[in-house]
Amino acid sequence: MTSSASESSDDPTAAGWIAVVGLGPGRPEWLVPEAATYLAEATDFVGYHTYLAMVPAALRHGQVVHGSDNREEIDRARFALQLASEGRRVAVISSGDPGVFAMASALFEAQTDDQVQPQWAALDIIVVPGITAALATAARVGAPLGHDWCTISLSDNLKPWSIIEKRLGHALAADFVLALYNPVSRRRPTQLAAAFEIIRAHRDLSTPIVLGRDVARPDEHIEIVELGGVDLGRCDMRTVILVGSSTTRIDDLGGRRRVFTPRTYPLT
Amino acid sequence: MTSSASESSDDPTAAGWIAVVGLGPGRPEWLVPEAATYLAEATDFVGYHTYLAMVPAALRHGQVVHGSDNREEIDRARFALQLASEGRRVAVISSGDPGVFAMASALFEAQTDDQVQPQWAALDIIVVPGITAALATAARVGAPLGHDWCTISLSDNLKPWSIIEKRLGHALAADFVLALYNPVSRRRPTQLAAAFEIIRAHRDLSTPIVLGRDVARPDEHIEIVELGGVDLGRCDMRTVILVGSSTTRIDDLGGRRRVFTPRTYPLT
Repeated sequence: MTSSASESSDDPTAAGWIAVVGLGPGRPEWLVPEAATYLAEATDFVGYHTYLAMVPAALRHGQVVHGSDNREEIDRARFALQLASEGRRVAVISSGDPGVFAMASALFEAQTDDQVQPQWAALDIIVVPGITAALATAARVGAPLGHDWCTISLSDNLKPWSIIEKRLGHALAADFVLALYNPVSRRRPTQLAAAFEIIRAHRDLSTPIVLGRDVARPDEHIEIVELGGVDLGRCDMRTVILVGSSTTRIDDLGGRRRVFTPRTYPLT
Repeated sequence: MTSSASESSDDPTAAGWIAVVGLGPGRPEWLVPEAATYLAEATDFVGYHTYLAMVPAALRHGQVVHGSDNREEIDRARFALQLASEGRRVAVISSGDPGVFAMASALFEAQTDDQVQPQWAALDIIVVPGITAALATAARVGAPLGHDWCTISLSDNLKPWSIIEKRLGHALAADFVLALYNPVSRRRPTQLAAAFEIIRAHRDLSTPIVLGRDVARPDEHIEIVELGGVDLGRCDMRTVILVGSSTTRIDDLGGRRRVFTPRTYPLT
């Protein structure tokens, strides 16, 4: 990606740092102030092109921008650690929360793996939390996560599909609300349907389902439907799916459709 | 609690609103700007005494403060809805995220229950998300939630202990990372030990455990230990407990103890 340095850090004694920063969904009103501070003080931004484009304009002032493709996380992590070890102030950019299916784990893996560079070990990786997509989507539709819940990535790029199936089965048997991340991609066109076969085997067709695409962004599109009427063709990598538990309810009060899970779980 | 009105809203045609606001852990650097906006514009604060005391001083300007005990959620929700229907601008205060084991569900329950007041149904309950304790604790220790995880409240005030046991068993069998909220209270002194008996039956004694008390607050105290060495006596209602999965790792790089769950899950 393009770059323009605002300052030089050729001095190797300069105090570099590395912070992995969660943008939340991307709207500035949901970005924690500490994230804004680290973004403003960084000399370098490192991240996936799409997330780099979400950094609010007010926080850009000529930082060097290092964009990369979405599937190059570990190389990106090593590159960011090397920059920081050379004295740069590096903000690694994630959407949502950087600790949830995002860059924080990749940074710790790169820092601790067998090929570790000694100069990386001294870096204190700062994690700045953010509003993860499950919380953002829940806030926009009501309170579906008001009781016990779990979050599962449906991507099998880094884990076997068998563990995803196993976790779905247990989560459904436990009657958790489910937040499903990375539901589908061009490389994985069929797995979302397979996941929903498992879901339909455990849950009533009236179970509330939330499809949240680009939540809290200008192109936000949210649907609240019942399991029996869900159209999976509307989902892509930018969609988060919430699956209700047996107690989750849809209400159409005052013309607004809301979904929530009550605090009380009945004795059965 | 004490109160001092900064303005009158005796005019019943005034446009009242109700927003349930997450403070995050309480530090202003982790409070989303939208929360600050609603707090500043509110005429009334409603909440549990302890959380009301966490509202940053800069956002207080004479709002009427309605404090109550922690176990009076549904009465508090009704009171807040009534205030808003009378034209007040009401901020209902939660710590963390208001949609996670907090006040958002109580508000939707009160709005939709059989005793509903017609004037409450027209209110659009605004949910302002926050950094929930699991994300806050994770950010302070590394990236333990970097893979699939679940969150369970150990309180059986509103659900039977049998469903908690069932959920713990499934979550452990699924090899989720666990975030345990409300682990213990004076009224429930023995359940945490019962939960850990279930955990020890499923997980190796080297499993990383994080005990996070008052995370991201001035009195923060965090311990990262192995399951075999955990001291449950250090836990209270202000503690969040993270239980690692089979892949979660502790590393002591550069003298700092960090815990993270790698992105990759091995084929077994």
